Amino acid sequence: MSTAIGPDAAAVPSVDDVPESQPIAWRHRHLLDVDRLSTDELDLIMRTTDAMREVLARPIAKVPALRGRAVTILFYEASTRTRVSFEVAAKNLSADVVNIAASTSSVVKGESLIDTVRTVEALGAQMLVMRHSSSGAPYLAADIFSGSVLNGGDGWHAHPTQALLDLYTMRERMPGGSLAGRKVVILGDLLHSRVARSNIWTLTAAGADLWLCGPATLVRGFEAWANRGAAGRRFHLTTSVDEALRDADVVMALRIQRERMAGGLLPSMREYAARYGLTRERLALARPDALVMHPGPMNEGVEIAPDVAAGPQSVITDQVTNGVAVRMAVLYLLAGTRVPS
Amino acid sequence: MSTAIGPDAAAVPSVDDVPESQPIAWRHRHLLDVDRLSTDELDLIMRTTDAMREVLARPIAKVPALRGRAVTILFYEASTRTRVSFEVAAKNLSADVVNIAASTSSVVKGESLIDTVRTVEALGAQMLVMRHSSSGAPYLAADIFSGSVLNGGDGWHAHPTQALLDLYTMRERMPGGSLAGRKVVILGDLLHSRVARSNIWTLTAAGADLWLCGPATLVRGFEAWANRGAAGRRFHLTTSVDEALRDADVVMALRIQRERMAGGLLPSMREYAARYGLTRERLALARPDALVMHPGPMNEGVEIAPDVAAGPQSVITDQVTNGVAVRMAVLYLLAGTRVPS
Amino acid sequence: MSTAIGPDAAAVPSVDDVPESQPIAWRHRHLLDVDRLSTDELDLIMRTTDAMREVLARPIAKVPALRGRAVTILFYEASTRTRVSFEVAAKNLSADVVNIAASTSSVVKGESLIDTVRTVEALGAQMLVMRHSSSGAPYLAADIFSGSVLNGGDGWHAHPTQALLDLYTMRERMPGGSLAGRKVVILGDLLHSRVARSNIWTLTAAGADLWLCGPATLVRGFEAWANRGAAGRRFHLTTSVDEALRDADVVMALRIQRERMAGGLLPSMREYAARYGLTRERLALARPDALVMHPGPMNEGVEIAPDVAAGPQSVITDQVTNGVAVRMAVLYLLAGTRVPS
Repeated sequence: MSTAIGPDAAAVPSVDDVPESQPIAWRHRHLLDVDRLSTDELDLIMRTTDAMREVLARPIAKVPALRGRAVTILFYEASTRTRVSFEVAAKNLSADVVNIAASTSSVVKGESLIDTVRTVEALGAQMLVMRHSSSGAPYLAADIFSGSVLNGGDGWHAHPTQALLDLYTMRERMPGGSLAGRKVVILGDLLHSRVARSNIWTLTAAGADLWLCGPATLVRGFEAWANRGAAGRRFHLTTSVDEALRDADVVMALRIQRERMAGGLLPSMREYAARYGLTRERLALARPDALVMHPGPMNEGVEIAPDVAAGPQSVITDQVTNGVAVRMAVLYLLAGTRVPS
Repeated sequence: MSTAIGPDAAAVPSVDDVPESQPIAWRHRHLLDVDRLSTDELDLIMRTTDAMREVLARPIAKVPALRGRAVTILFYEASTRTRVSFEVAAKNLSADVVNIAASTSSVVKGESLIDTVRTVEALGAQMLVMRHSSSGAPYLAADIFSGSVLNGGDGWHAHPTQALLDLYTMRERMPGGSLAGRKVVILGDLLHSRVARSNIWTLTAAGADLWLCGPATLVRGFEAWANRGAAGRRFHLTTSVDEALRDADVVMALRIQRERMAGGLLPSMREYAARYGLTRERLALARPDALVMHPGPMNEGVEIAPDVAAGPQSVITDQVTNGVAVRMAVLYLLAGTRVPS
Repeated sequence: MSTAIGPDAAAVPSVDDVPESQPIAWRHRHLLDVDRLSTDELDLIMRTTDAMREVLARPIAKVPALRGRAVTILFYEASTRTRVSFEVAAKNLSADVVNIAASTSSVVKGESLIDTVRTVEALGAQMLVMRHSSSGAPYLAADIFSGSVLNGGDGWHAHPTQALLDLYTMRERMPGGSLAGRKVVILGDLLHSRVARSNIWTLTAAGADLWLCGPATLVRGFEAWANRGAAGRRFHLTTSVDEALRDADVVMALRIQRERMAGGLLPSMREYAARYGLTRERLALARPDALVMHPGPMNEGVEIAPDVAAGPQSVITDQVTNGVAVRMAVLYLLAGTRVPS
């Protein structure tokens, strides 16, 4: 590792070339969550994403960096944006991509996750992007897969590339590119949100003044964490949407899932919209230039009003485009992993 | 636009090169239906399809013309031939293709069409091929998508590439390459047919003597149109299969969908077959060399007899192959669109 | 054919080059089952698979041999490993691959198999890989498809590439590379197994001492065949797992399907596991270095114990990797077919 520039340097990878040729070392074999990433490593991902945004702006938005590298996308849950985003990201890097929608494949025959992962590896996969309804499933996969596992969302637990694209989108828009001291609000169904859980790590690491807000039934279990913090970095919890939104720099609304009604956690979509939906009136409590974000897919008229989602403060489609770039960045960095021996 | 050869010239694009390098201007950003196409524009599509047929006859049936161009195929209805046809067409042009089967994706989570189209664009799509069960959905998409939208079939409304491949197939087989004065019959369930609706425009534009024929319940609503015509070009309507088929040059049978029985529009498949099925006996009323066509998939033994479908007059598989070529042509032309400013 | 080296020569194709350039002639247009393959032809497939294994070991596991060749994978049954294996194999040869999952496509609209195959050909497919729940369906397809049909599994009938990858895996591990006189056991639900039926041909052709073992209800119909043999080459049948496993060189456990219970063919999964499951205790009856195989997907704890499946004698993941290589080999050989005129 002596010749490698550490992630703390300000260097940007030359992403037209193969990852192995870079003087920048990436030390993690997998991307399972963001909780293990240092701020220097987060910075390196952000800089590499800058380079990928530059690639996306080219007439032919491709680099040969991962030519011949086999990427398998194994999704146990339906998805459009995350699945396609990883597919486009891998193809933009010239990787070979295989899609497996587990719900429509022989995986329904009852094959175990371990057996499926072993099979995918034996079929030639070197990088495995995985979404699973059970929290922790990608960790199990990482134990047996000899290449790199990228968590594309597991249960309520983690969604690391979403947190990274959210971080990138906020930094891109903040004067000075820093979140330090900025009031960032995550609004909605925290309880079931892997997006929120991953964002807590990255946003507190970036120095944001983080607020989580939702009905009492949907913020359960976060009190202890809020006090303890993410790696000691504290955040706030409130059920008052006014308190949360006041002077906010960023407001991220989370998707409300209809099936939560059945569980008795919410009285009705209509009542949720009335009490916690991100409307133009509520947004007026925030700073005039506050960013509006949503991880999608949206229930417009429920957790977010259509005019807010499509309004001038919305960066929701930027999130999608940045998602492609950030996934190119992590695929690139992981492909060049040099795990310390 | 001063250097551009208009579509009225007899020039054929050099389809080995990128569309932007051509002296031929295409002035529509989208292909939503055929009703807006002039006869000169139809001719240009036909000539470009000739060029694509020549590409398909090569040992390696590919050109680099759309290299690096991102095509997304978003289908909200099940399809084999149209979906695969667009995929093969785009890949033959070296485009990058992403498939989204909306019925098995997160689109089922209730995301709006507008939100999905915005997301697909933010993921990098430059051309969007779309099939939807609601008439008009591609028009909505075209309002918000900044690239080109190609309608792959919307409800009962339109199926422009099907009409174009039908037109190409007929012209290819007609002596002199002209449909002027030729008796063309579309037979079957007109009411629910986007294929028929789009064909009315192109076939009358080509000067065909067009006849629509089917049971009274399945030709409803066409009387007024038949009298008014398509852009003033008239066509005939009859419930008499004998009158329709007599001396016909082309007979196109349409698919009968089983679900129409439930709606009370048809007594039974058996009775439909007996009264309107395209049998060898009925076909004998037409000219001896009359073409037999069907957009597929066929209910053999219902709207068309197996021996007619596979008989010497059938050009049904030609339609499929021409479908790839015509889709290559429209993808190529749309990729080089120069919308008048 | 005078300049062609016959399959009996020991030559290995130069798989970096196109199949047509090879001095080795392959005389079958389709791969429907293994019963028509001579031992010389099996040897040629094995040698070509060796060459493909060498390709898979390269940093970029690809050759341009089938560039521009159109391969369609049409699966009427859910599958992960076979479908992906063929897709990866074809892509490693630089072919263009189209996937059609018939269960989610318009094939559900009731289109006939013949019509679908004609359509797939008209869309440009030159090689058709097909899985179907009806025995014999690929034979029907081969009658009308002008290119090559590869059977990816049909009903209970045949699964030729599985038998070939099994043969390759056994030969690779046997001292001297020969199965002559080796005791090979196939254990489980023979009745419903296309894997077993195809393996009977190749294993007896390779000179193995073949034993089939399962409950009486699941070996029905094999008595007559066992006595008559495969092309005169006999094999053994027993319901005694101890007799079968004693001194075996290879034990292949077959998947038990839950739906067999409903049919009354098996009392329960638990009882099957107790009486016929491949446990460590039972495996101790075989030779100490006996190979453990399974075509997958496994019901671990039913037909095979987890510690046996993951144990040191297991070559189950080797089977998967060899499956990619063997499918590359047969795609390559079929692409260069010179059918005697």
